[in-house]
Amino acid sequence: MIRSSRSLAAPPLGVGAPRRLLCSLFLATTTLTILATAATVRQDWEISYQFTSPDCVRKLAVTINGQTPGPTIRATQGDTIVISVKNSLLTENVAIHWHGIRQIGTPWADGTEGVTQCPILPGDVFVYKFVVDRPGTYMYHAHYGMQRSAGLNGMIVVEVPRGQAEPFVYERDHTVLLNDWWHRSTYEQAAGLAAVPMVWVGEPQALLINGRGRFVNCSASAPTMVEGCNVAHPDCAPAVFAVVPGKTYRFRIASVTSLSALNFEIEGHAMTVVEADGHYVKPFVVKNLNIYSGETYSVLITANQDPNRNYWLASNVVSRRPGTVTATAILSYYGGRSSPNANPPTTPPVGLPWNDTAARVRQSLATVSHPAHIIPPPAKPDRAILLLNTQNKIDGKIKWALNNVSFTLPHTPYLVALKSGLLGAFDERPPPETYDHQRYDVFSPPANPNTTSSDGLYRLRFGSVVDVVLQNANMLGANSSETHPWHLHGHDFWVLGYGYGRFDPAVHPATYNLKDPIMKNTVAVHPFGWTALRFKADNPGVWAFHCHIEAHFFMGMGVVFEEGVERVGELPKEIMGCGKTRGGGH
Amino acid sequence: MIRSSRSLAAPPLGVGAPRRLLCSLFLATTTLTILATAATVRQDWEISYQFTSPDCVRKLAVTINGQTPGPTIRATQGDTIVISVKNSLLTENVAIHWHGIRQIGTPWADGTEGVTQCPILPGDVFVYKFVVDRPGTYMYHAHYGMQRSAGLNGMIVVEVPRGQAEPFVYERDHTVLLNDWWHRSTYEQAAGLAAVPMVWVGEPQALLINGRGRFVNCSASAPTMVEGCNVAHPDCAPAVFAVVPGKTYRFRIASVTSLSALNFEIEGHAMTVVEADGHYVKPFVVKNLNIYSGETYSVLITANQDPNRNYWLASNVVSRRPGTVTATAILSYYGGRSSPNANPPTTPPVGLPWNDTAARVRQSLATVSHPAHIIPPPAKPDRAILLLNTQNKIDGKIKWALNNVSFTLPHTPYLVALKSGLLGAFDERPPPETYDHQRYDVFSPPANPNTTSSDGLYRLRFGSVVDVVLQNANMLGANSSETHPWHLHGHDFWVLGYGYGRFDPAVHPATYNLKDPIMKNTVAVHPFGWTALRFKADNPGVWAFHCHIEAHFFMGMGVVFEEGVERVGELPKEIMGCGKTRGGGH
Repeated sequence: MIRSSRSLAAPPLGVGAPRRLLCSLFLATTTLTILATAATVRQDWEISYQFTSPDCVRKLAVTINGQTPGPTIRATQGDTIVISVKNSLLTENVAIHWHGIRQIGTPWADGTEGVTQCPILPGDVFVYKFVVDRPGTYMYHAHYGMQRSAGLNGMIVVEVPRGQAEPFVYERDHTVLLNDWWHRSTYEQAAGLAAVPMVWVGEPQALLINGRGRFVNCSASAPTMVEGCNVAHPDCAPAVFAVVPGKTYRFRIASVTSLSALNFEIEGHAMTVVEADGHYVKPFVVKNLNIYSGETYSVLITANQDPNRNYWLASNVVSRRPGTVTATAILSYYGGRSSPNANPPTTPPVGLPWNDTAARVRQSLATVSHPAHIIPPPAKPDRAILLLNTQNKIDGKIKWALNNVSFTLPHTPYLVALKSGLLGAFDERPPPETYDHQRYDVFSPPANPNTTSSDGLYRLRFGSVVDVVLQNANMLGANSSETHPWHLHGHDFWVLGYGYGRFDPAVHPATYNLKDPIMKNTVAVHPFGWTALRFKADNPGVWAFHCHIEAHFFMGMGVVFEEGVERVGELPKEIMGCGKTRGGGH
Repeated sequence: MIRSSRSLAAPPLGVGAPRRLLCSLFLATTTLTILATAATVRQDWEISYQFTSPDCVRKLAVTINGQTPGPTIRATQGDTIVISVKNSLLTENVAIHWHGIRQIGTPWADGTEGVTQCPILPGDVFVYKFVVDRPGTYMYHAHYGMQRSAGLNGMIVVEVPRGQAEPFVYERDHTVLLNDWWHRSTYEQAAGLAAVPMVWVGEPQALLINGRGRFVNCSASAPTMVEGCNVAHPDCAPAVFAVVPGKTYRFRIASVTSLSALNFEIEGHAMTVVEADGHYVKPFVVKNLNIYSGETYSVLITANQDPNRNYWLASNVVSRRPGTVTATAILSYYGGRSSPNANPPTTPPVGLPWNDTAARVRQSLATVSHPAHIIPPPAKPDRAILLLNTQNKIDGKIKWALNNVSFTLPHTPYLVALKSGLLGAFDERPPPETYDHQRYDVFSPPANPNTTSSDGLYRLRFGSVVDVVLQNANMLGANSSETHPWHLHGHDFWVLGYGYGRFDPAVHPATYNLKDPIMKNTVAVHPFGWTALRFKADNPGVWAFHCHIEAHFFMGMGVVFEEGVERVGELPKEIMGCGKTRGGGH
């Protein structure tokens, strides 16, 4: 069923989409060296429902070639990725986003339903074709409804071309995909979120490492207490990571969680953080790593411990009061006396205290650019947008809003509507640039919890430099503020600063780190805090920017940016067919 | 949310689809009298997920304006029905079929996904507009995936125009919609059907009368034993049917079950059968009524019993060994001493023995046309198709097949493909007209259980007379043969005969009832038996013909007929947008 190949082929320009104009930007960002060795990586995917038991409890999942997570895509910088996605669901559409890939020259391949494409209907085949122009660790996942949490996710690894060095050395790599998992279907979760009063699904039943976890109430002694529970199911056998004594390994870690912020640890092995979201980090050593949904990190560990026992890999919830048992996997030494899949003799690490926000902020601040790989940010922005993140209500339904506007997705993709000049496809009034930051009390629940919704978007001048400050605030209940990992499509941004409390545009920009800021695509906004970021609006297309907590985006926590859409070439017809583009009716 | 209105308006020709040619047939079947009083009945529907408790156990259902079943559509013969369907599901498409309405002149409004239209995407609004040209009792339900069982169903009542008589008299009518209900989602049910080995959902957890039933393991004494169980939930309070002593009532009964054949009884009240599928029946009296999925009946009862107690309405499974408790509702006399919703003092009727096939065949044979309303069938067919119904396997998956071909739906609707001359949208080889009826042993499992699949269709000469004989047979297991209720879209057929064992084309046509056959749109094929029917291929369009058991159609038990597609007017663009019509790409 799965067909995967990597073959040397004509350079990407040649294999590019016929009938599409590739913008000059593409050439500018792709060196001739890369072109000379570029290959094509192909996979054929079939999306279908399958019964799986990731935490030993049987549940229907949305799978890729029968699996969740899906296959890891491995490629080399400059390669063209061609993923043919066949939707074999019965009544449900799909769309797949390539998280961290900027889609330069191929904005129609970003896979964001309602933004860059119509969904893929049952029976249809949609071919995603794009170039991976930077090495690094990325992921893919559905970007439609709550299908990401239903099982449609996996990792993307882009290697540096042969002969090219990275600013660290390792023997080989392992991939670690972290997730959280519920027994309730995503349809039920979404219906609960939209209900009045809201029916909240609660904390996850399990955390998963590479799709494997353990539901605590499913046990060999009382399997019949939980329907469909089988602790011996092969789907929930812990992942085993083998290492050769003395060697150094790169662990490529991605979090695709629906809700949970996680703390990750490899028992007894200090981790040196070297990459974040595809950018080289000034190395720093941690005992455990905080990782938010949508983030990726690479850490190095050296296999320098007693090889005759195994060690835990452990993932724990932070930032919310945990209600879920530690997820575990096993690190095993080749040639040691322990069986590779034997449980370590110790108790799995429990990680940081869940509410140790200060430690998590420290890690955020420690994550700066590798000195040899600094991409200097522009000194000043052309435009600064200040976004207040609040929890609100519309007609009694709980929502999230930015500057008192709760985002809704249109049903005609912006990219198509804007390129084709379709009127009435979305609210043409731009959302607000700021809020009343001098008066609003970010430490109290909103005085007036009611908000409005809109599918309006921010149109950015092509090539301009844009600052966005994400201001966190108190939720509807007193003394509560969550961590929100915001993810930007189509770009990396410089992370210029973090602060606690109210951001003051007259004061805080002076504190920005313009020297060695890391570039990322996903960044945490800490409780009651703010995060400042800067990006160049230089990638023609339409791009979502949203909280990566699936329920939060569903409830309106996002915005959309457009830039240079007039520079986008002819759109492939395959992205159309819905809303005002149905039946070619435009 | 719901907007429903019936208003006198221009006659249907005037309000008909602009830009569409209405074929002359339409005029021929619509009398001027009817035109003069025709009105428009409008409803606005929003399709959404809602938590419901039809059998006292909480489950996510697909609903119409928050309800399942949806609103009853009441109209008068000749009225134009305009139903605006907004899909507010998250990732799932929909399509609604108007079961029993022939859609003369509006084949694009039949609502059969893959046959007459592309599905309605989330966010889209699709307007179904059609004329109800005959009085009678009909129903509507989703015709996409297994959404019918997920909750998308309801009834249609078409009255005779004022002043026009029916061949019986009654005071007023009640509608009774029968269903079966599972706690497993339809996604799980479908995934189980497609699994190897097949995971069968089992017998229903409840039978429903007007959307209300009772799960036997949900009790007031141990509510926590079943998750989401609440015996006091208003959703599962039994339906109450009130009658005035001495009056005669018409009960309009429809079965929209996914699986179950049912036996229906009104305790203490003999039922006179007067209508079947919109046609007047030569009246016959029954104590209880067998009704198969897709069928409708009208029965008359007279409220002539002791008014000081209530009586059960009861629905029980027949034809399969029952695993489900009797469904009940309450008949209550106005002015009697019993509280309207008090349980009757008796045990609910258990109906016929489930395996009393002979009694069910007797009812089939008793159902003939009312003498004053006989529509004489043509004396001979122009074409006879003999369809052997077998259970088979493909790659280990269990399927149903006709003449060893298991039906699959294409993803470009036939109607669009054929009108637009799209090539490659479906298998152009016609399916077989017959099977080796002289050798095949219908009393044994298939010698070779393997079969093939196809989405080919039967193309019928416009205006020709077609006979179809449905031959039942033994399933994969020994000594087993089920009842299959076959439903034809776009037509009524004459029911010419039933038999036991092998149909012999050289012998049995001579036994056909050509004198007073009832016309129906759904008919039972009894275990190990055959059913012969005849219809005129005089309705331009493409029409499904299939077993109305939802799992059976899903597993291939259907065929498709085309006739006079060249006479169909310009298709509305709204039915396109999928398969080869995506993005207007044709």
